[in-house]
Amino acid sequence: MGSFVGYRCSICHKEFAPEEVQYTCPHDGGNLDVILDYPVIQKYVSPQQIFQSNESSLWRYLPILPVREAGYFDTPFHRAGFTPLFSTPSLGKAFGVDDLWVKDESRNPTASFKDRASAVVVARAQEIKAEVVVTASTGNAGAALAGMAAAIGQKAVIFAPRTAPPAKIAQLLVFGAQVILVDGNYDSAFDLTIQASQEFGWYCRNTGYNPFTAEGKKTAAFEIWEWWEKQRKLSSTARKLVVFVSVGDGNIISGIHKGFKDLLTLGWLETMPRIIGVQAVGSAAIANAFQSGTEKIVPVAANTLADSISVDLPRDGVRAVRAARETNGTYITVEDTEILTAIAALGKVGIFAEPAGATAYAGFVKAAQNGLVQSTDTVLVLNTGSGLKDVKAAMQAVQEAPIIEPSMKALKQYLER
Amino acid sequence: MGSFVGYRCSICHKEFAPEEVQYTCPHDGGNLDVILDYPVIQKYVSPQQIFQSNESSLWRYLPILPVREAGYFDTPFHRAGFTPLFSTPSLGKAFGVDDLWVKDESRNPTASFKDRASAVVVARAQEIKAEVVVTASTGNAGAALAGMAAAIGQKAVIFAPRTAPPAKIAQLLVFGAQVILVDGNYDSAFDLTIQASQEFGWYCRNTGYNPFTAEGKKTAAFEIWEWWEKQRKLSSTARKLVVFVSVGDGNIISGIHKGFKDLLTLGWLETMPRIIGVQAVGSAAIANAFQSGTEKIVPVAANTLADSISVDLPRDGVRAVRAARETNGTYITVEDTEILTAIAALGKVGIFAEPAGATAYAGFVKAAQNGLVQSTDTVLVLNTGSGLKDVKAAMQAVQEAPIIEPSMKALKQYLER
Repeated sequence: MGSFVGYRCSICHKEFAPEEVQYTCPHDGGNLDVILDYPVIQKYVSPQQIFQSNESSLWRYLPILPVREAGYFDTPFHRAGFTPLFSTPSLGKAFGVDDLWVKDESRNPTASFKDRASAVVVARAQEIKAEVVVTASTGNAGAALAGMAAAIGQKAVIFAPRTAPPAKIAQLLVFGAQVILVDGNYDSAFDLTIQASQEFGWYCRNTGYNPFTAEGKKTAAFEIWEWWEKQRKLSSTARKLVVFVSVGDGNIISGIHKGFKDLLTLGWLETMPRIIGVQAVGSAAIANAFQSGTEKIVPVAANTLADSISVDLPRDGVRAVRAARETNGTYITVEDTEILTAIAALGKVGIFAEPAGATAYAGFVKAAQNGLVQSTDTVLVLNTGSGLKDVKAAMQAVQEAPIIEPSMKALKQYLER
Repeated sequence: MGSFVGYRCSICHKEFAPEEVQYTCPHDGGNLDVILDYPVIQKYVSPQQIFQSNESSLWRYLPILPVREAGYFDTPFHRAGFTPLFSTPSLGKAFGVDDLWVKDESRNPTASFKDRASAVVVARAQEIKAEVVVTASTGNAGAALAGMAAAIGQKAVIFAPRTAPPAKIAQLLVFGAQVILVDGNYDSAFDLTIQASQEFGWYCRNTGYNPFTAEGKKTAAFEIWEWWEKQRKLSSTARKLVVFVSVGDGNIISGIHKGFKDLLTLGWLETMPRIIGVQAVGSAAIANAFQSGTEKIVPVAANTLADSISVDLPRDGVRAVRAARETNGTYITVEDTEILTAIAALGKVGIFAEPAGATAYAGFVKAAQNGLVQSTDTVLVLNTGSGLKDVKAAMQAVQEAPIIEPSMKALKQYLER
């Protein structure tokens, strides 16, 4: 079964056949939405069949994805997605919300949400017989591409600015990717990636450029939907679902929105959840546009410790604005200090988040304080990456430990202080 | 149902009732094995019931564990264990072994095998109504205790030497544990932990001291058994299973041995797999004892980059020697350079291991080269922790990336070099 029938430009709405274009709209450069043949999907699969699937990964949603097969069982490629949802009432109560959940994306194979995008892009690369997949990145997207590609023996090339932290580069190299450092910034690496993909026929994974990244990311919405359907059966009250997502280039929030839209179109989801985007104050290009009531994204000089969402020019800004606007959501901005507080709060319930992951929870706190969520809402906060990715930030989130002599006397003195 | 009926000293074989002792043998300080009431287990549960369990964590084995209930659903506590098994034929072929698997323990909640021990110890702490759980550790065991305790709101205290890397301490602090640095080495922290637990009634998790850590770790053997039963049904040939485990203080290999022994006693496992322990050459106290044919563990001055298995005096050495001896296994020692090579090899199939995790694979390579495994063997290698825990080691495992100007001309020049 194949349900992938084409693309639609998010700006001019022009449609293209699958073989006509590959990345962005040839007319205006707009991000392309993947079009699926919904009647075909409805004919071949039902929600019940999906709910009963034995596949403990995002590949349980294969019939609603624009690739025909996944394969490569018993590899990390087949363990992306299907991340746990943790009930964290203690984190919500102080803010008047009893029913608070964290979906922990740090449990993905390379410890971030980005594995969802890379898994689907790599599957697409196999389908179009691409010899090489290339991306510009120093962070989670690069690690995810390197990891998913390694898992199935696909060749990956990653361009990164030479100023990238050696530790992050090491992870890419361990996964066997060909890493090329460019003597320039991220944007020059991004541009070179596109040039190289055009000239060498490499398949480009760049976020906000390749339409399949959002298709991978939408699987988080599918998992939220499955969980939500179960929750609704368990609970008699008519709760409303609010989803908090941290936003950098805008591709995750766009992907999640796309997932819910797919389900609505299929008639499998009753009500669109509210989607609330959270940006760092120092990297708020999309939040700024939302607050001004436009879709015009004005670049900023990004400055936040949440490196995974530190973005001058978001490459998927327009769709990201719409994700909040079309779902009765909103955008919240939070200071770095609030992000650090959120890291510590999540840690206290056993979830170790990187700054960008904790940003969504910081946004929830602010939203609750400003009356933007109700006590009858069910709130779901997405942690997009593992705290092990940025231990330096974790060190800023906590107070130093005391030092004592190794004796009971010293210990007692300290405890009785 | 409760099947926990007492302890047996691994040295003098004296037995104790559950309420008689708590940690080690009062006569000779030997490690205690937990005794289960196997007929009771056989009466109340069957392998088929376990195979059909919906519980995707180590708690699917609750009937074969010495605790009565787990609870705390929808928390990270309920996501320890049940780690994926990856088929990695490309890693084995060069060494004449087609059927090679890696069980990836880095997918545990705090990214190491130690979550298994901490989950069960924390469950025990709840059962005996301990207010505080304490451990000495700077590494994976500490993180696992802090994380599992945070997940269920149990208070945890961790003693670490003041020389511990601040990044590792940060993780413990993020999980909300009370961290106390002692002005001394690991052994002084270990001793203070025991004194504090005696005086304050804190429940002590120390590895090689608390009998419940091995009970948690044995769940990996249960998962291997479940997988192995399925494999045997799929394959017509009579393969033999060989398990490679890295060894530091000896508690993981002892726990896995205990798990297989439980299953043999229950009549649920036909043949004991061979267990092969792998130590770093620079931290080989247990391998030395094995090679000398004794159970006498002579301390070493440990020196290896695999910090999680760098141990002067292994606290569970005797049982660790037996795990290999009683299963027709052996001990292998590997150089740090071989460990680094193993990190890179595992990375190339999408598995990012910390040095101690890659050590088991390094041991397999050496064993295969020395004819210690057969082409008809099914080999399972345990990766005990995530490479994100020690990115510095990963940097040593790979070659530096090239730096080029951000232009197609420079890129082509580099590619054609």
